[in-house]
Amino acid sequence: MSRASWTLHALAEQLGIEMRGPADLVLDHLAPLGSAQAGALSFLANPRYRHQLEETQASAVILHPSLAGGCSAAMLLSDNPYLTYARASHLFNRAPIPASGVHQSAVVDETAQFDDSVSIGANAVIEAGCVLASGVVIGPGTVVGANCVIGENTRLYANVTLYHNVRIGARCIVHSGVVIGSDGFGFANEKGRWVKIAQLGGVVIGDDVDIGACTTIDRGAIGDTRIGNGVILDNLNMIAHNVVVGDHTAMAACSGISGSSKVGSHCIIAGGVGIAGHLEVADRVQLSMCTVVSSSLPESGSYSSGTAISETREWRKNAARFRQLDSMARRLTALERMLDNRHPSRHDEGDTGAGE
Amino acid sequence: MSRASWTLHALAEQLGIEMRGPADLVLDHLAPLGSAQAGALSFLANPRYRHQLEETQASAVILHPSLAGGCSAAMLLSDNPYLTYARASHLFNRAPIPASGVHQSAVVDETAQFDDSVSIGANAVIEAGCVLASGVVIGPGTVVGANCVIGENTRLYANVTLYHNVRIGARCIVHSGVVIGSDGFGFANEKGRWVKIAQLGGVVIGDDVDIGACTTIDRGAIGDTRIGNGVILDNLNMIAHNVVVGDHTAMAACSGISGSSKVGSHCIIAGGVGIAGHLEVADRVQLSMCTVVSSSLPESGSYSSGTAISETREWRKNAARFRQLDSMARRLTALERMLDNRHPSRHDEGDTGAGE
Amino acid sequence: MSRASWTLHALAEQLGIEMRGPADLVLDHLAPLGSAQAGALSFLANPRYRHQLEETQASAVILHPSLAGGCSAAMLLSDNPYLTYARASHLFNRAPIPASGVHQSAVVDETAQFDDSVSIGANAVIEAGCVLASGVVIGPGTVVGANCVIGENTRLYANVTLYHNVRIGARCIVHSGVVIGSDGFGFANEKGRWVKIAQLGGVVIGDDVDIGACTTIDRGAIGDTRIGNGVILDNLNMIAHNVVVGDHTAMAACSGISGSSKVGSHCIIAGGVGIAGHLEVADRVQLSMCTVVSSSLPESGSYSSGTAISETREWRKNAARFRQLDSMARRLTALERMLDNRHPSRHDEGDTGAGE
Repeated sequence: MSRASWTLHALAEQLGIEMRGPADLVLDHLAPLGSAQAGALSFLANPRYRHQLEETQASAVILHPSLAGGCSAAMLLSDNPYLTYARASHLFNRAPIPASGVHQSAVVDETAQFDDSVSIGANAVIEAGCVLASGVVIGPGTVVGANCVIGENTRLYANVTLYHNVRIGARCIVHSGVVIGSDGFGFANEKGRWVKIAQLGGVVIGDDVDIGACTTIDRGAIGDTRIGNGVILDNLNMIAHNVVVGDHTAMAACSGISGSSKVGSHCIIAGGVGIAGHLEVADRVQLSMCTVVSSSLPESGSYSSGTAISETREWRKNAARFRQLDSMARRLTALERMLDNRHPSRHDEGDTGAGE
Repeated sequence: MSRASWTLHALAEQLGIEMRGPADLVLDHLAPLGSAQAGALSFLANPRYRHQLEETQASAVILHPSLAGGCSAAMLLSDNPYLTYARASHLFNRAPIPASGVHQSAVVDETAQFDDSVSIGANAVIEAGCVLASGVVIGPGTVVGANCVIGENTRLYANVTLYHNVRIGARCIVHSGVVIGSDGFGFANEKGRWVKIAQLGGVVIGDDVDIGACTTIDRGAIGDTRIGNGVILDNLNMIAHNVVVGDHTAMAACSGISGSSKVGSHCIIAGGVGIAGHLEVADRVQLSMCTVVSSSLPESGSYSSGTAISETREWRKNAARFRQLDSMARRLTALERMLDNRHPSRHDEGDTGAGE
Repeated sequence: MSRASWTLHALAEQLGIEMRGPADLVLDHLAPLGSAQAGALSFLANPRYRHQLEETQASAVILHPSLAGGCSAAMLLSDNPYLTYARASHLFNRAPIPASGVHQSAVVDETAQFDDSVSIGANAVIEAGCVLASGVVIGPGTVVGANCVIGENTRLYANVTLYHNVRIGARCIVHSGVVIGSDGFGFANEKGRWVKIAQLGGVVIGDDVDIGACTTIDRGAIGDTRIGNGVILDNLNMIAHNVVVGDHTAMAACSGISGSSKVGSHCIIAGGVGIAGHLEVADRVQLSMCTVVSSSLPESGSYSSGTAISETREWRKNAARFRQLDSMARRLTALERMLDNRHPSRHDEGDTGAGE
């Protein structure tokens, strides 16, 4: 049986959950409930889609026991179907697995340390003093700078770049185009000219971190830039020098954290967010898409900035008025005072005001 | 005659348009109307610049027949001068053309299929099972993952990364730093910890697609991420997993489309735009620079968000008032009601109100 | 004495400033005032932290002479301590220095010109006609396209991509993932289809330019894209075709300048800023984080756009009201006129209005 074909029984055992249906039913791929065909395992995570249960062609469905009644397919019962789907997804992964060993075209410094379980791809470069733990995978064209330390089973995909002295924990995934350890953006100004500050710190990344394509993480100016355990970063994120990102924080694409800011743990940062420098963001803060954080957020909670979207013709008028907002507020207050003077008890008179 | 030197006659023939002037006039480069020198072909696309016709030193000008009267240079007459310029630009392109064949330093799996017309650059890597159609160009340092399929005459520049199972159509251009097929940002949450969902889908890109430097396109979670025919993506764009981009849509730099969103065809998305996940954007939608799309846009049209720019000192006051906007609206309504109660017929009395 | 260990006396000489303390005191690293240990050189740039002087464990501190009284450690006296720190930082830099010469795995065209002082790293590619001045360092995996010209002591880190005909000045630093010379985003539209315009210009970068990881700089459509001397660009910046950036301008991460815009010298552009195309931004303009510049800024000064951040619950109400802003302004004016008609002299009566 290929790695991506399972009986219902084997799946239930592997996932440690209860099954309903023929034990020898063969499932060989995952598919969405609405478009699944025979042989597919599907899942129902959002009860809003329960109506799809009746018509699905999936051979089996992962779902909550309370919804089992409406399902004619075989079932895998889970208290958290989305989590079970996450676990099951890896069982159907047909992505090629890199062979262990060093590709003959790779350039590996003789002082680098690693064992036979490590895979180093074509045209990869491993510089002096690196230590790669067992099971590490280095993709083709990836460059690992001097004295980097990479933990067990961490995978760097193709064309990743690590500068010197970067430490990455175990079980991390680093996607292509990622750059870790580039210089932080530190300069002094001398009579209008920028004088570069050598960036002497490193980057320390915890265990179980996932870093999306073309994300950049700069090295610290003096101390290290630090990414906690279990952090997940999407593509095209920017982590500036000396930033600290707390454990299990998630950051969607195209977001950036400026220098020396400290973001708490279990935060959820949507796409396009910008966080200014030298701020502190508390644990469990949620930031909406494209929010601009210009001051510290000492309390957990959900924060947003920006305006609602409108048709451009309408938007132009409103955006122009934004420039008058302070003046409008003052004019409004002036009107209230004028009327108040005439009606000293207005505030007691309820929302409709009162006639004379 | 070198590829980048043409007589007026040869150009007119090649472009299929009418000429006015000496047939053997030699043109060897393109230049803007305002700064052109002898030997230059220029163009007038925007009638606003017609005054430049009188003084231009260009040897020939592409322009609309209706403007021919004001031009003392030789002419190529076109109903759409900008389009004719676009066509002519390729005739003056002196960019080096990569030699066909496989560079000796490239690492090409023996199962990859391609013919002699294909060019594979220095230190490129082509993994198992890839199929490259005729005329494909793979730049130096580019990595093509297992089982990718690339259509006729598509060019991947240097240091591009394709993961496994990416399909790209014919005549596409993929610029350096692009990553296609990296994992979508899919995780379930288990008691505060992120559990990765294997991204089992692929990426399917149509014909005639242009992808700018450092743009990332993630593979689908289950189904594929899909980019239609004739789509043009600028640099540093982010296309998340399972996004669908319709034919002939354009997307300027630094914009992102979040997971599972579906953008229509013939849309024009300016730079810095963010589109949230699981939305539908209709055909022929235009989005202004840095617009945030947080709900579906079922109608074509032009949309914007954000505020106008101001001097920071003014902006601070107005931005602070933004936080009072709902309160201001309520206070305004209260004032109106108060005055209305006293003047029941106010709304009939015109803009100036009325005395008592 | 290793390159990163200095006596106080040697440091003072090297930096050309006055010292106070034992001449033979050995300093072997830099550390922040608050966390420094013995052997550390620290600095006090912001007088707000002067209280840390009393308790610091640093062996020596760079500080302004006026603050020398409060410091018990050895001292290096400077009128501009931050600038002195910038200079001193390079003296403690332990980053590995690439060996000069061509790595055997590099692919260097025989027509490329350079001397023995140049370093070309593993798996780098140098195409035909390139000219590399003395002291140039080309990192591993970096691709330099045909006919590029690179000035003295400029360093391209690993996995950089230069297209053909890119000119870079002396003493520049180009970080990993950077792409310079990719096609500008130029297309004509023919009945809904995009027709590519060949990008025939180049890129010209001045001296002392610093370019952050994964920044992209497109080549010009006809003329060149130009980056002035002393410009500093952070990570993930986007410089579109035919942009001109003036000398000594700084641009923080995730910002973009659209096609043909001209930004002055000595500007400071914060992170996430978007500048539309065909604009002119004056010298010495400062732009706040995530500002959207949609029209030219002919005067120097500080500019901003966007709204303040709020809790999402509050923000939703205010953002919805933004759509009514023009209507609110009109209603406010209507109320003022109504009251004005009754009180013609209101504006003379002061803020409180007047009773009847």
